[in-house]
Amino acid sequence: MNYEIFSELLKSHLDQYCEVERKQRPKELYDPELYILSLGGKRLRPLLTLIGCDLFNKEVKTSLDAALTVELFHNFSLIHDDILDQAPLRRNSPTVHQKWNTNIAILSGDLLLVKAYEMLANYKTKELKQLLTLFNRTAIEVCEGQQLDMNFERSDSVTVKEYIEMIRKKTAVLLGCSLQMGAICAGAGKSSQKKLYEFGVHLGLAFQLNDDLLDVYADKNSFGKQTGGDIVSNKRTFLLIKALEKAKGTKRKELNKWLTGTDFSNEEKVNAIKGIYDSLGLKELCIEEARKHTLKAISNLEKVKADPVKKETLKKYALHLLERSN
Amino acid sequence: MNYEIFSELLKSHLDQYCEVERKQRPKELYDPELYILSLGGKRLRPLLTLIGCDLFNKEVKTSLDAALTVELFHNFSLIHDDILDQAPLRRNSPTVHQKWNTNIAILSGDLLLVKAYEMLANYKTKELKQLLTLFNRTAIEVCEGQQLDMNFERSDSVTVKEYIEMIRKKTAVLLGCSLQMGAICAGAGKSSQKKLYEFGVHLGLAFQLNDDLLDVYADKNSFGKQTGGDIVSNKRTFLLIKALEKAKGTKRKELNKWLTGTDFSNEEKVNAIKGIYDSLGLKELCIEEARKHTLKAISNLEKVKADPVKKETLKKYALHLLERSN
Repeated sequence: MNYEIFSELLKSHLDQYCEVERKQRPKELYDPELYILSLGGKRLRPLLTLIGCDLFNKEVKTSLDAALTVELFHNFSLIHDDILDQAPLRRNSPTVHQKWNTNIAILSGDLLLVKAYEMLANYKTKELKQLLTLFNRTAIEVCEGQQLDMNFERSDSVTVKEYIEMIRKKTAVLLGCSLQMGAICAGAGKSSQKKLYEFGVHLGLAFQLNDDLLDVYADKNSFGKQTGGDIVSNKRTFLLIKALEKAKGTKRKELNKWLTGTDFSNEEKVNAIKGIYDSLGLKELCIEEARKHTLKAISNLEKVKADPVKKETLKKYALHLLERSN
Repeated sequence: MNYEIFSELLKSHLDQYCEVERKQRPKELYDPELYILSLGGKRLRPLLTLIGCDLFNKEVKTSLDAALTVELFHNFSLIHDDILDQAPLRRNSPTVHQKWNTNIAILSGDLLLVKAYEMLANYKTKELKQLLTLFNRTAIEVCEGQQLDMNFERSDSVTVKEYIEMIRKKTAVLLGCSLQMGAICAGAGKSSQKKLYEFGVHLGLAFQLNDDLLDVYADKNSFGKQTGGDIVSNKRTFLLIKALEKAKGTKRKELNKWLTGTDFSNEEKVNAIKGIYDSLGLKELCIEEARKHTLKAISNLEKVKADPVKKETLKKYALHLLERSN
């Protein structure tokens, strides 16, 4: 794809930012920030901000601080979510609370959230209010999504609708926000901003549904990690929620047995539940749901009043991301 | 004092805010916010914002959202600090992590921080950038101050200068920020804004030094709580830091014994360390340091170009707060 130059711009902007942060004190507060930013990742969100700006033929440099805002926010949420989930690893490295401690993880996460706003404050008054309003609403929804996710862990009666609403808030809105922030920096019209936002949100939903599928159905070798992790941990995914909705009689009893019992290996559990999913045709249902959101995403993108060639490039890039199997 | 009307305005604005928050979902996220805001407290910070606005004869209503911003931020920091300190009580009620759990306390704290920024986004573009820049810098310093405080717990070689810098960041800058935000809402000039900020910071330092004193020397009955809590927990206060600096020879050995030993009652420890403080003349030194900052505060206030009668009222109010013994 053609976004290599954007990635390089981003990397250099992030490096400059870290150069300044390295001089800040106390080190105990700033080291975790530098650490999590050094773990890399795809940097998809800030890239979307640059792409959102470029669509309207505005110099992407104008959107670099907004891109950094979403990246810093994303890393804040990773640090705090990892505490909530008691996750030991993030991108194959120790999580912040694991490497330091929970107190430092809470406080350095707070710092990153404020730093995200500090980047935003670099904008001129005209764009600033639009950027801040969008970013605030998104940040609130991300908190709500995280709380809904925690609630669902303890619930047996989550509906697919509720699940979609949870992943919309927890992960999808930040993609929409990232794109729209780029559009705001470019001075795009309100209607195009909104369509681009919706493109990002539906793309995010399709990504998450794809992830739900990949955990169960991905090719072990190309997926790069053991499949079935969600099944082992009884994670409420589209597949499990749909199974709990559709399985009746003995099939439901069997499903409950695998969800509550412990006298079997993980492999046995994964195979058994996968068997139930297959018998209910859930793979197809999940593919169908993901496709629905992909189509909605594309239909929104088409309505954005922007450079048609650039829109086509973005569409191809999005479909490419959806097809990737890792 | 004459600030009753301001307090009532604030209360009604906060009530309106809570009315809206009560309708938000998921409840698990919003209930802790409503809970901590219901615990009350002096609401000193938002009051300072209204006072800062009124000094320049601007309608205080224009500063209500900025006042709410500092109050929401203050409550965010209380929720997270209580986790860090493992505090069971806040204003005689269970802390958020105690009443719910740590995960909910982390997430609802995050929400409050974002909500603080949401209030700020209500401002017009002209004031918005000034408010946001000041608020960001303050929030970053508060995080740094909290980290420094945690570092000091594990250090035996903190200097008075470092201690003052820590309390400046952890508690004093938010008072300065609260006042300056009011001044920004009133459209005050940069120089007066800065002087008013410095007034708040030095007032905050004097408050904290006063608190250090009160813990040891307050009249038990009028202070309303057992004195000596800081001594029992070996908390690094102005008094202990100065004692560690000044006590030599056998006196230092005796001090160390009380700091590290355990085979005595709290009352014995408090009396013994109080005796060491007295023998080193630390009460007077601490009073002197507090007075220095009070004078600096007042000298800054005098330079603010604002209504002289209102400045005089504020000065009296500040001195009254400093004299209170609870």
